[in-house]
Amino acid sequence: MKDVTIGIDIGGTNTVLGIVDRSGMILSENSISTTQYPDVNNYVAAVHEAIEKTLTGVGEKVSLKAIGIGAPNGNYYQGTIEYPPNLVWEGVIPLCKYFSKYYTIPVVLTNDANAAALGEMIFGGAKGLKNFIVYTLGTGLGSGIVINGEVLYGHTGFAGEIGHIIMVPGGRDCGCGRQGCLETYASASGIVRTVGEILSLRRAESPLRYITPHELTAKKITEAAENGDPVALEVFDKTASMLALSIVNAVAFSSPEAIFLFGGLANAGKYLFKPIEKYINENIQVIFRNTVKLLPSQLMESNAAVLGASALAWKELEH
Amino acid sequence: MKDVTIGIDIGGTNTVLGIVDRSGMILSENSISTTQYPDVNNYVAAVHEAIEKTLTGVGEKVSLKAIGIGAPNGNYYQGTIEYPPNLVWEGVIPLCKYFSKYYTIPVVLTNDANAAALGEMIFGGAKGLKNFIVYTLGTGLGSGIVINGEVLYGHTGFAGEIGHIIMVPGGRDCGCGRQGCLETYASASGIVRTVGEILSLRRAESPLRYITPHELTAKKITEAAENGDPVALEVFDKTASMLALSIVNAVAFSSPEAIFLFGGLANAGKYLFKPIEKYINENIQVIFRNTVKLLPSQLMESNAAVLGASALAWKELEH
Repeated sequence: MKDVTIGIDIGGTNTVLGIVDRSGMILSENSISTTQYPDVNNYVAAVHEAIEKTLTGVGEKVSLKAIGIGAPNGNYYQGTIEYPPNLVWEGVIPLCKYFSKYYTIPVVLTNDANAAALGEMIFGGAKGLKNFIVYTLGTGLGSGIVINGEVLYGHTGFAGEIGHIIMVPGGRDCGCGRQGCLETYASASGIVRTVGEILSLRRAESPLRYITPHELTAKKITEAAENGDPVALEVFDKTASMLALSIVNAVAFSSPEAIFLFGGLANAGKYLFKPIEKYINENIQVIFRNTVKLLPSQLMESNAAVLGASALAWKELEH
Repeated sequence: MKDVTIGIDIGGTNTVLGIVDRSGMILSENSISTTQYPDVNNYVAAVHEAIEKTLTGVGEKVSLKAIGIGAPNGNYYQGTIEYPPNLVWEGVIPLCKYFSKYYTIPVVLTNDANAAALGEMIFGGAKGLKNFIVYTLGTGLGSGIVINGEVLYGHTGFAGEIGHIIMVPGGRDCGCGRQGCLETYASASGIVRTVGEILSLRRAESPLRYITPHELTAKKITEAAENGDPVALEVFDKTASMLALSIVNAVAFSSPEAIFLFGGLANAGKYLFKPIEKYINENIQVIFRNTVKLLPSQLMESNAAVLGASALAWKELEH
């Protein structure tokens, strides 16, 4: 009988769950609507039902050992989701407690970015690394920080908010209610804002002048860069300089051996990685020179969230 | 027979050593010149001799369990001092190895700021805390970061360089060869530079206009603030805003439960603490509101370095 864990990724629209073995193979996958269950008790009952159905769908005999959940504003210590901005439930939701009505095995929960870091450590490019950071470059910027082989949760359970480190006091308005946070510059939404800024500064012709900010995406900016558009190239350069400054400062703080970039914006590839490396080399403190690698995530975006949540469960079993 | 450790504080001019019991009582103390021994082998022999002399000077019978050393650019992992800018020795000095010629008990080494954090944890205001940061505000700005009850050393052994986090890209020249590091704003030398900046901006009369930058000290600026000098008050306000921004960003990174301020500049008391608290409250991310305390160090400056080095030794014995 094969030992497995279940990884559950709770998104604003859908919840995806996968049955995952220790090697990172997803044996079976399923999904349900998140929005359809305004009552969280009904939601947990539906997830439970989906899990049982998915387990019977696996071709071989499996033994379920633990359940890991990745959720926005997830608190590992408490097993709660706290004041999630994009979910149907409000306030503090003791999700692990609800799941314990159905399961006696460990049920653990953390936020998406910490799950991504665990996925990288258990199944991806960070295998065997003890000190590293994953930047998840999505609509916002999340981060999972691993220190001595453990995710950094801090006193509150909410450590690792690199996206909300203030880079420019009085800078761009952030969704957190403050100004100048890293994610307002370095994320899929941040890079679109940078296009507006650079277009306002330069007189150069650019295909980006013919796309509304509302329709503009990181992918379209990458395409413009591929065609040699100077505005797009300057936009990547500015984004890279912000990310590099954040990385240089993170290295001064915790001295990791690697930084992984994950998510949509990381697909810009050389347009992002090359200038980030250049700015890191120019700005890193001498004692940290050549001590930290910049790497793309080794997880596929399509299944990283489920693998990350599953990795949380596998990690819990090691403790 | 009482168990003791020895704390050794290696300074550019003098080396101070103390025999310390588990409660933080310094039973006997001694010092030798650091500069007098350009050959590090002779230096270690002299320290050894001083230790033996000091041990016999203690009134009661003691059992020496471990030796802890605090030194600039000390690397805990390697037991080395690496390229210290202000010591007589050059390159990488394997100090713990040299001491092991004389002692079979554990000999451990770290940098001054990490030793300060350990001193706070074992003997000071951080007893029982698992996640906190000590800022040492001396000529420069050092920091010791404690995560889950352990000093954060990172991949290289050099983590915890908050003083060299770049706050102002292209800002003030720093001794590290870069620009805009926190310590160029928030340290005894940084605050003197801020006086120059504020004097250049304002037309107000101020006693600080009659002191050369070379002669100016944090103490004199504090005295001016006590007399209501608006320039001095603005200088503290600007220093506090930089420290608060650094603290708010450190909280986003590692979510500590307390920040301790130690060292000369911390003696400015309310002129520094009050505006720092104000700026923290104004700028901290909502999820971290009221989760972190700002506290003065509970160690006396006169013996903190020896106690910190001794705390490193006591901590090592726990492992």
